[in-house]
Amino acid sequence: MKAAIVTIGDEILIGQIQDTNSTFMAKALDKIGFSVVEMLTISDDKQAILSMLSAFQNKVDVVLITGGLGPTKDDITKKTFCDFFNDSLVQNDAVLAHVSELIEGIYKRPITQLNKDQALVPSKAEVLFNKMGTAPGMWLKNENTVFVAMPGVPYEMKYLVNEEVIPRLVKEYNRPFIVHKTIMTYGVGESILAEQIEDWENNLPSFVKLAYLPSPGRVRLRMSAKGTNEQELHNALNNLTQSLQLLISDAIVGLDEDEAVEVIVGRLLKQKGKTISTAESCTGGKIAHLFTSVEGASAYFKGSIIPYETQMKTKLLTVSTSNIEKYSVVSSEVAKEMAQNCKQLFNSDYAIATTGNAGPTKGDSPAEVGTVFIGIATPNGVFVEEFNFGQPREKVVDRAVNKGLELVYKEILKN
Amino acid sequence: MKAAIVTIGDEILIGQIQDTNSTFMAKALDKIGFSVVEMLTISDDKQAILSMLSAFQNKVDVVLITGGLGPTKDDITKKTFCDFFNDSLVQNDAVLAHVSELIEGIYKRPITQLNKDQALVPSKAEVLFNKMGTAPGMWLKNENTVFVAMPGVPYEMKYLVNEEVIPRLVKEYNRPFIVHKTIMTYGVGESILAEQIEDWENNLPSFVKLAYLPSPGRVRLRMSAKGTNEQELHNALNNLTQSLQLLISDAIVGLDEDEAVEVIVGRLLKQKGKTISTAESCTGGKIAHLFTSVEGASAYFKGSIIPYETQMKTKLLTVSTSNIEKYSVVSSEVAKEMAQNCKQLFNSDYAIATTGNAGPTKGDSPAEVGTVFIGIATPNGVFVEEFNFGQPREKVVDRAVNKGLELVYKEILKN
Repeated sequence: MKAAIVTIGDEILIGQIQDTNSTFMAKALDKIGFSVVEMLTISDDKQAILSMLSAFQNKVDVVLITGGLGPTKDDITKKTFCDFFNDSLVQNDAVLAHVSELIEGIYKRPITQLNKDQALVPSKAEVLFNKMGTAPGMWLKNENTVFVAMPGVPYEMKYLVNEEVIPRLVKEYNRPFIVHKTIMTYGVGESILAEQIEDWENNLPSFVKLAYLPSPGRVRLRMSAKGTNEQELHNALNNLTQSLQLLISDAIVGLDEDEAVEVIVGRLLKQKGKTISTAESCTGGKIAHLFTSVEGASAYFKGSIIPYETQMKTKLLTVSTSNIEKYSVVSSEVAKEMAQNCKQLFNSDYAIATTGNAGPTKGDSPAEVGTVFIGIATPNGVFVEEFNFGQPREKVVDRAVNKGLELVYKEILKN
Repeated sequence: MKAAIVTIGDEILIGQIQDTNSTFMAKALDKIGFSVVEMLTISDDKQAILSMLSAFQNKVDVVLITGGLGPTKDDITKKTFCDFFNDSLVQNDAVLAHVSELIEGIYKRPITQLNKDQALVPSKAEVLFNKMGTAPGMWLKNENTVFVAMPGVPYEMKYLVNEEVIPRLVKEYNRPFIVHKTIMTYGVGESILAEQIEDWENNLPSFVKLAYLPSPGRVRLRMSAKGTNEQELHNALNNLTQSLQLLISDAIVGLDEDEAVEVIVGRLLKQKGKTISTAESCTGGKIAHLFTSVEGASAYFKGSIIPYETQMKTKLLTVSTSNIEKYSVVSSEVAKEMAQNCKQLFNSDYAIATTGNAGPTKGDSPAEVGTVFIGIATPNGVFVEEFNFGQPREKVVDRAVNKGLELVYKEILKN
C-alpha cells in the first residue's frame, strides 16, 4: 500500500514556516503498514494543485493533503478539488452548527460569512468532522485513490489523522506488515560502525533494509522488515539484533529506542522511582523544556535553575566566587559545583549541569568558543566531562543537551 | 528563476526524523529572488532519485538536494548521479587531504576505506568544499539545470548553502526581485481580519500576493511583490501597508516582523537597555530556551527558575504557602507572586511567570486542564492574565509561551 503526503502553502516554500505536519502523518502511516513514497510541498496555486492531483491519481492508494482550507482568499484547496473531480460545493449542516457553536458559543465572537463558508464541502466528499477547529476534513475516493484534505493547523490535523483517517484506512485496506527495530549507539562514528558490521550488513535478508541515522554524538541503526507474516518479521529482526550485539556490544546503549532520549530517560527514572533536576547555563533551559514536554514529567522532574548571568550562578546555586575567579565561569570546577548544588537544592537523585561558550563570540570566560563542561551529580557522587562542540551555536546547544542526557542515562542504568 | 528542493532519506519518509533542511534552503533561495516551486522528499532508492532528476531536468533552473552522501551503503546519491549523467567517480585529492586531516588530526581516529571513499566525486561535478564535515558538496550543470548535492547534516548543509551555493547563484543568474513585507497582528481571528480588509485585499495590484499565516494567538499577514524594479516594489508595499494600518490599527503590533517573537523582544530589550528573567512552571523552560537560542542573549536575558515541583515555588521563589493552599498552585495569586519575586531575584526590569495545567491530566491543582495564568512584572508593577488553551499539552505550552512573549512585548513598547 503506497501513500503520498502533500502540504500546500507558499509560506512553507519561502521558508517562513517549518512544516512539521508531514513528519507526523508519515509516522502515522508507517505504523499501519503504508509506505510513504513521496512527500511534496506545493504552492497555493490552482495549477500546482491540479498537477499534484493528476500525478498521484491511480499511482498511490492514499494521498494525505494539508493546508489551503482556511477561510481566506488564499485558501483554494476546496475549489480546486471541485474543478478536478468535476464537483461542486454544498453546505454541510452538521459542520455549520459546529462552526456556529465554536465561534459564537466558545470564542464569543460574531459569526462572519467567511466562517459560515467553512461548512461548504465538495458534494462527493465524506466530511471528517473536526472537533478542534472550524475547517472540516474531507475524504474523497476517486477511482483507485483516496484523497484526504485536512486543515494545516497542526493540532487540528493531528486530531483528524488520529481519530478519523487512520481508523478508516485500517478498516478499508489489507496492508502488509512493516516492523522496525532501532538500535541506539553512542560514541562510535558512522563510518567505523559501518566497517565493524560490514559482513553482517552484506548478509541481511532481502526483506530487511538497514539505515544509519547519525545525529550529534550518536548513531541509530534502523532495520525495517516488510512481509505478510508479522511474527516472522519480529523473529528475523530479533535474531539479527542478537548477532549485531555480539559485534558492537560496546557501542549499543539501547534497543528499540525509537524515541526521543528525554522520553527514554524519563521512563527509566519513573521505573526506578528517582528524580532529576537541571542547572543550565549554555543550554538555556532546553533540557528542562525537553523533560517537561513529556506527559507525566512531574513524577520525576523537579525543576531547573537557569543562571544565565554569571553572578546568578553564585546567587542561586552558591557556586563559589573564588572558583569563578580562579578557573573562569566555563570550567570543570564550576560545572561540578553547579551539579552538586542543584541536586541538593532540588533534593533530587540526579542533576545535570551545563556551562560553556555557545558562541559565536566569547562571553565571561576565556574558554574557546564551543567549549562545554557537563557536570553529572548522582547518588554516588559527581563528575564532569569537557567537550568542544565547535560551531555554530545551535549545534553546541544541541550536542550539549544530547550529551548531558546520554551521560545521565548511563548513570541511571548503573544504579 | 525557478528552484526545487529535494531531500533524500527513508528516515524522513517514515517520520523518524524531521526535515528542517528544506526550510533553511527555501529561505536562502527566496532571499535572492528564486521561486521555490516544489519541495520534495524521496526514498534512498535508485529509481526514485532517477525519476526526480529527470522530472526537474530543464523544468527548473536549480535543484538543491540533500542527503544520501554519507559513507554507508544506504547512501547512493553519488552513484545514481553517475548513472543519470553518464559519468563516473574520480578521486578529489583536496577532499581526500581534508578528510584525512579531519579524521586523523582532529577526531584522532584511524581513517577507514569508507572515509577515503568520501573523496570520490562524479568527474563532471565541481566540488563544493565542505569545511564542516567529510562529505563534499557537488555542483553539476546539465543542459539548463544546475543540480547541487549536499550532505544532510544540517550544519554542513548550512555552511555549503551560505558559503558556496548562494554566492554562485548570485553570480551566475539574473534574478527578478522579490520583496516581502510581513505585518504581525495579535488578538483578532483570521476570518474577522479577512472581513475587515476585504476591499483592500480585492484591490491589491496583480504583482502583490497576500498570505494569512495564523498561529496560536496571532495572524501574520505577508505581502510578496515580484518585479524588475526593486524600489518600485518597496514603494508599493509601503503604500499598501499604510492603507492597511488605517483599517486594522488595533490589531497590528509590528511591521516587517518576519522574525521569531523572541528575536523581536530581545532586540527591543537591547535597544532600551533593559533586562528580563522568567519563572516557568507549565512552560518548563521553553521561554528561556527561546531567549537563549538567540546570539547575544546575555545582554538582556538574566536567567530563569523552573519550579516544576509545587514546593519549589515556595523554596526558590518564596511564593507564600498560604496562597498556594488557599487558591491552589494554578492561580492568579501564585502567578503574580512568581512574576514579582522572579523580577526581584534576578534584579531584572521585566519578568514573565507561568503556572498552569498543561494536561492531559490534572496535577497539584483543581484548575481545569488547559488553564494557564501568566504573570508579567514590569518596572511599573505586575499583572496577571488567565487563559484556557484547551488541549493537547503541546498546544497549551506553545500558546502560553507565545502569549507570555506577546504580553511582555506590549509592555516593553509602552515604557
